[in-house]
Amino acid sequence: MSDTVKYLLEESRIPKRWYNIMADLPAPLPPVLHPGTKQPVGPDDLAPLFPMALIAQEVTQEREVEIPEPVREIYKQWRPSPLFRARRLEKALQTPAKIYYKYEGVSPAGSHKPNTAVAQAFYNKEAGVKKITTETGAGQWGSSLAFAGALFGIEVKVFMVRVSYNQKPYRRALMETYGAQCIPSPSPETQSGRAILAKNKEHPGSLGIAISEAVEVAATHDDTKYALGSVLNHVLMHQTVVGQEAMAQLEMAGDYPDVLVGCTGGGSNFAGLAFPFLGAQLRGGKKVRVVAIEPAACPSLTRGKYAYDFGDTGHLTPLVKMHTLGSTFTPPGFHAGGLRYHGMAPLVSHCKELGLLEARAYHQKAVFEAGVQFARTEGILPAPEANHAVKGAIDEALRCREEGKSRTILFNLCGHGHFDMQAYMDYFSGKLVDQHYDEAELAMALAGLPSVPIAA
Amino acid sequence: MSDTVKYLLEESRIPKRWYNIMADLPAPLPPVLHPGTKQPVGPDDLAPLFPMALIAQEVTQEREVEIPEPVREIYKQWRPSPLFRARRLEKALQTPAKIYYKYEGVSPAGSHKPNTAVAQAFYNKEAGVKKITTETGAGQWGSSLAFAGALFGIEVKVFMVRVSYNQKPYRRALMETYGAQCIPSPSPETQSGRAILAKNKEHPGSLGIAISEAVEVAATHDDTKYALGSVLNHVLMHQTVVGQEAMAQLEMAGDYPDVLVGCTGGGSNFAGLAFPFLGAQLRGGKKVRVVAIEPAACPSLTRGKYAYDFGDTGHLTPLVKMHTLGSTFTPPGFHAGGLRYHGMAPLVSHCKELGLLEARAYHQKAVFEAGVQFARTEGILPAPEANHAVKGAIDEALRCREEGKSRTILFNLCGHGHFDMQAYMDYFSGKLVDQHYDEAELAMALAGLPSVPIAA
Repeated sequence: MSDTVKYLLEESRIPKRWYNIMADLPAPLPPVLHPGTKQPVGPDDLAPLFPMALIAQEVTQEREVEIPEPVREIYKQWRPSPLFRARRLEKALQTPAKIYYKYEGVSPAGSHKPNTAVAQAFYNKEAGVKKITTETGAGQWGSSLAFAGALFGIEVKVFMVRVSYNQKPYRRALMETYGAQCIPSPSPETQSGRAILAKNKEHPGSLGIAISEAVEVAATHDDTKYALGSVLNHVLMHQTVVGQEAMAQLEMAGDYPDVLVGCTGGGSNFAGLAFPFLGAQLRGGKKVRVVAIEPAACPSLTRGKYAYDFGDTGHLTPLVKMHTLGSTFTPPGFHAGGLRYHGMAPLVSHCKELGLLEARAYHQKAVFEAGVQFARTEGILPAPEANHAVKGAIDEALRCREEGKSRTILFNLCGHGHFDMQAYMDYFSGKLVDQHYDEAELAMALAGLPSVPIAA
Repeated sequence: MSDTVKYLLEESRIPKRWYNIMADLPAPLPPVLHPGTKQPVGPDDLAPLFPMALIAQEVTQEREVEIPEPVREIYKQWRPSPLFRARRLEKALQTPAKIYYKYEGVSPAGSHKPNTAVAQAFYNKEAGVKKITTETGAGQWGSSLAFAGALFGIEVKVFMVRVSYNQKPYRRALMETYGAQCIPSPSPETQSGRAILAKNKEHPGSLGIAISEAVEVAATHDDTKYALGSVLNHVLMHQTVVGQEAMAQLEMAGDYPDVLVGCTGGGSNFAGLAFPFLGAQLRGGKKVRVVAIEPAACPSLTRGKYAYDFGDTGHLTPLVKMHTLGSTFTPPGFHAGGLRYHGMAPLVSHCKELGLLEARAYHQKAVFEAGVQFARTEGILPAPEANHAVKGAIDEALRCREEGKSRTILFNLCGHGHFDMQAYMDYFSGKLVDQHYDEAELAMALAGLPSVPIAA
């Protein structure tokens, strides 16, 4: 009944380097293209948006990138994060499987996002940047960057999807408590925002629109840069502290995963856990089944097209090759706001194309059912996004029971749900229903993908 | 800018025993009296409410009580909790003081409350109890007992002060996610509740009323016991894991506190930190200044009378000697709901009478100002209750600056504020104002204290 099995590493074992999967991939990642010339972008194209150190990390082929000491210093506040064996959940499922989870909800912002927020704030500070703009959906990313900005003395301006801004005033309050400015998007502050408001004053906003606004402000202000909370190579790389620690912790347990599970929105928590294990496999280590779980209402990996697309709705970003539902696609307003993005990290998409991972989509009622079972057995209440991974792990464990096989399952519990209680209330009251995207809208969005001449 | 100094203990150093300050006090604690006979109560008087093991802990004079292994097993999920040196806050204050804080917000419920919830659930389970009733104000305690109940398979029924029930639906949702039943108090389920509803159908409730209801249900059902989240001796004792760990962690730092600071509502997080240090002092160790911080709107230690009083409004509990504002006193509805109690733990009150601690009261605006400064420097957003301790520690540090003296300050950051963002929103919007209790009401409540014949 009461066995807690926790694997903790000493502070000195916070990774000293981020892991870059590009060094180990059997085929190179397709290049990022300039939206005008459709030619690969160079560092100068990105310089208005990011400090040079992050641009270098975006394209580096080095296997390891050193983590600066000031970043490790701040990581110490909550890292190494614990790895738990889910003994009570295993018993409830009557499964022969061993279920482990890495818990990233111990950070001050409550999720894995500060792993990259701190790094990005550091490099911006080093480059003399005074102000960072960004977008946020559910608010996990915005509050993490607000946290990091406060520690480094950088002003943070967050464009928050308007519907979330209105629905989640507490996330906004968290950002403001950290000293950040939070603006509902679309806003009258940018051309992109004004263009949308001119058509519809009540536009609910989307992540794609908020990205356009944040990018526009950074591109037009010399002292201001832009930060993204997922999708980009350097962001995923910053998250590999998760997988590296988990690997060391499983070694303490004398174990190694047969199956890895993570939820995917932009792809960063998933990649953070999976890439170090995939890298080991690519270098000749043990093969691991890697399962990405996405929401059925926004299924980029399972229903999207692998194609070049814009990262935003206003078409201000470069073109990246990824699994996409089309930049005009608007997913229904389901509760895992962190997974409502039309695209997928190019590196995750590429790995899927290379057959290194599989993807599965779930509807939200089943996902919350899994989250509640997890809370009642393991005692931690997961974020709606993380519930996707919980459900994925439970299904793998139940398969083990059916097949009478004991496998080792590891998943990333990427955040707690303390800011998401409305979703749980809706679940218990029956208001939370499974939502379906509009097939016609998806077809139209996919038909509108930009054409790219080069065979990338 | 970026130095994080964290002291972590290994899992094996979770305390093996709770510390009982009664063994070291120079004068015995005044006895608890039966409200009818006004004679000291015996174990049988309490048996309808608590399992025998907890009654024994309530009165034991043994210095140490062994922590059962299954309780330590569950403590492992988040214990030992970290001790931080607040370097960034020190720099912001330009103080020569060293500020340390013990962080209890790492528990799954987000506060120190699970330290006793798990212990109480364990002893109830051992005694074959199927159901526990309790009350909750802000919801920290109710959600902690719900968490513990889920792990031990015990039904939990929480009477939640109606005004909080309506204002804090997310806390309620957390309890329900853990499987507990949450009922707005006063309720039609009990005689105490019905009596109050008969006079006022819209009664907002109070902690005193909710206690009456929870006690009544336990007293009238054979399979049901009652649990209290603070005030009682055994509850305070369970919290001493906090101070014991902090002592070991400061030893790692080569330091020892000159000043200890904690916030006081019922007194449990404060006592949990302070009692192990006070015990060491009473046994001949170094003298420590111990400062209890309470809300000026509910100032039991600074404005209450040290006298016998009921713990509840319905007068179902025994009489305990404590600093009290009178059981009919209703504090204004300020934001630190966990500190809105008319009385104070008898042990904390007794220590104050013995001159072992001092008390100070703060109004809430200054307390939130301190909390925001803490969030922006240390990166952790404290609960409104904990902000009282933050403000107390900051004031001590500023005094060090004025006096040009370096002292070591340790405070208990007893919980995070992720469920309390409305309070921060009210603070930023200017809606949060300092509140004053009604002097006439206080005088009346104090005049109504029960008369007790014995010279205790």
